[in-house]
Amino acid sequence: MDRQDFDFEAAFAPGLPAPAPRFTGFPRFNFIGGHNDPAQIPVEGLIEAAAAALKRDGQALALYNLGQGPQGYRPLRQFLSDKLSSVRGIRAEAEDILITSGSGQGIDLVTRLLVRPGDCVLAEEFTYGGALNRMRALGAKVVGVKLDDQGIDIAALHAQLAEMAGRGEKPKFLYTIPTIQNPTGSVLPLERRHALLELARAFDLPIFEDECYADLTWALDAPPALAALDPGRVIHIGSFSKSLAPALRVGYATAPWAVLSRMIACKSDGGTGALDQMVAAEFFTHHYAGHMQRLHGALSGKLAVMTEALAAEFGTSVEMFAPKGGIFLWLRLPEGVDVRKLVAPAAAAGLVFNPGPEWACDAEAAQSHLRLCFALPDAATIRDGVATFARVCFEETGIPARGANRTRS
Amino acid sequence: MDRQDFDFEAAFAPGLPAPAPRFTGFPRFNFIGGHNDPAQIPVEGLIEAAAAALKRDGQALALYNLGQGPQGYRPLRQFLSDKLSSVRGIRAEAEDILITSGSGQGIDLVTRLLVRPGDCVLAEEFTYGGALNRMRALGAKVVGVKLDDQGIDIAALHAQLAEMAGRGEKPKFLYTIPTIQNPTGSVLPLERRHALLELARAFDLPIFEDECYADLTWALDAPPALAALDPGRVIHIGSFSKSLAPALRVGYATAPWAVLSRMIACKSDGGTGALDQMVAAEFFTHHYAGHMQRLHGALSGKLAVMTEALAAEFGTSVEMFAPKGGIFLWLRLPEGVDVRKLVAPAAAAGLVFNPGPEWACDAEAAQSHLRLCFALPDAATIRDGVATFARVCFEETGIPARGANRTRS
Repeated sequence: MDRQDFDFEAAFAPGLPAPAPRFTGFPRFNFIGGHNDPAQIPVEGLIEAAAAALKRDGQALALYNLGQGPQGYRPLRQFLSDKLSSVRGIRAEAEDILITSGSGQGIDLVTRLLVRPGDCVLAEEFTYGGALNRMRALGAKVVGVKLDDQGIDIAALHAQLAEMAGRGEKPKFLYTIPTIQNPTGSVLPLERRHALLELARAFDLPIFEDECYADLTWALDAPPALAALDPGRVIHIGSFSKSLAPALRVGYATAPWAVLSRMIACKSDGGTGALDQMVAAEFFTHHYAGHMQRLHGALSGKLAVMTEALAAEFGTSVEMFAPKGGIFLWLRLPEGVDVRKLVAPAAAAGLVFNPGPEWACDAEAAQSHLRLCFALPDAATIRDGVATFARVCFEETGIPARGANRTRS
Repeated sequence: MDRQDFDFEAAFAPGLPAPAPRFTGFPRFNFIGGHNDPAQIPVEGLIEAAAAALKRDGQALALYNLGQGPQGYRPLRQFLSDKLSSVRGIRAEAEDILITSGSGQGIDLVTRLLVRPGDCVLAEEFTYGGALNRMRALGAKVVGVKLDDQGIDIAALHAQLAEMAGRGEKPKFLYTIPTIQNPTGSVLPLERRHALLELARAFDLPIFEDECYADLTWALDAPPALAALDPGRVIHIGSFSKSLAPALRVGYATAPWAVLSRMIACKSDGGTGALDQMVAAEFFTHHYAGHMQRLHGALSGKLAVMTEALAAEFGTSVEMFAPKGGIFLWLRLPEGVDVRKLVAPAAAAGLVFNPGPEWACDAEAAQSHLRLCFALPDAATIRDGVATFARVCFEETGIPARGANRTRS
């Protein structure tokens, strides 16, 4: 350090995250995070949308929030009002919708409204790591709710709520991803949705519904959102990251005005990026259904490649939780395999994945689980990546002993 | 409230801001905030920029941060590296720059790194209200530094630092806007910059330099940024809100890596909006100088309209602090006029302005001051607005008694 330089390191407030490393690019086998398929970005459509939206509303860029107020670009809210009604059964006018800078900001705002240090929050036992981190950063104790292949186990939740009530403990809310659950990919059936909301009413529990992946429900027959079934009890968020592009930072929230008005008051970013909003609105107003159809086809095809490769490489040594949509595959390796020990050797082989413990309320209970994103790599890279992962796994754990129809050595 | 609705209001954490009101549009005379001139938005240029950038990099939208890492879109950082070097004298490679979601996020990140509750922070006696709010929200005590028409009064700062050191008080940093100071519009001369940095070194004080408005220095002869003169001691932020459009949420920071790496680690928004970044980069890489020249002409013209109107309406009852650039005019009405009492009657007359007390370390010392943004309204609206303000002011305070060459009654 130069004699005259200021020693910033010594001046930092306590409790900061560790410094970020220099970014050195992505590894060859990138199965981490929520990237999407580059081939499915509708580049020409976005160029046309940018031109049309700028021609119509470009001058309004001179005003914060395009002069349309802190809830965001009105044509985008109008598109969402229509889509939420037709696809998710939610009745929300443009005035009932807040555009957020990604759904992560929605999670930030909602948790900030509701969580005090020491509060208990319920969440699915396996859930979005980013939400877990945000809730825990505010001092929440996040307690897992049992899942099966159709989402939340209602009987288990009932017993859990009764047990907590017996102890005088009242969870602050239930954070749930009922439609393409992250990471398990399940869709909560309609009867379970009704039963869940009945429990919520009985135990005076509000619901925080994250529908980040609902646009990617391939069967197109998802039951209505929880927010459609009990709008006075549910805070609902969603995103364009999965349906259009994650580099666009556009999400949304709808909730009772008591909640939405506080979220708006806490949203101190000067608005969400205008061009991201304008282009998403213009493109989806004209091309939502067609784009979704193409994207579903591409993603389900990549999932098939990945499940075939995993079956070939791992055989019975892997349990796959077949997702009903989305971009992730949730896996369980045999008990005794701690995937955290695979992170470093996998990275050395050019492969990254999300270890189960980072996506679980109880990290130890998910030590054999992992999440793979299949949306970004092409088919050949998926196959090579799965083979690489099997090799690393075998070298570290002896599992899978057989794979790709041969004995490993 | 429906019987089944959840009572969110009762569940909120303490200390939240008041709920936002429903947005009902802007008043006719909108002299508040940092809006810009709609006629100066280069709509055709932005359409071309969007097409070119999307054609080249559109597929990368499928990756968070366009696959280029958390510091932001590389062509934008390269443009900034070039601009900071040629216009502000700062040597910063693309790797030394972090794109932020507006400069407000830069202020959020820097204050979060450095401020602990109870810390003292120095700032110009009149300064950006948004920065004051953020620093105070973290528990900082913000102490004002004396300004004159050339910015910080160095002798006064020296005495203040010596006095604080004598008491054993060490300010955490100095937040300063040396180039087009907000709200006073001054530019700190080169010799004062050197003297300021000498004091900073002598008193072990780091500098947080906000250059949000530096692109709008009309004379084009601003001295180098503080970050150019002592890069090891200065955290530097800027924005595209004033140079291009505030609805785009794009700002930037450059600082020693110890600071920048922590800012990156704390930037939890999943990246800044990609299209906002791409279009700003593409447009400014080709059109920065020309756009600035046109914008300077338009803004200085509007300022002239406003100062003429104020002189005609208020005569000697107003002191104007002639800005060297930017979009704001800082005024002082006669002692005894408390501008806070004008807010409601002005709003009733369709006019909003920024009361001085919200832009001051010591609110009471700025009760006769106010800030008017002249960038948004056209010339006729500026004239009508100033006349309206004079009428409201006269009705509430008896000042100005004469205006527009006639006695008021």
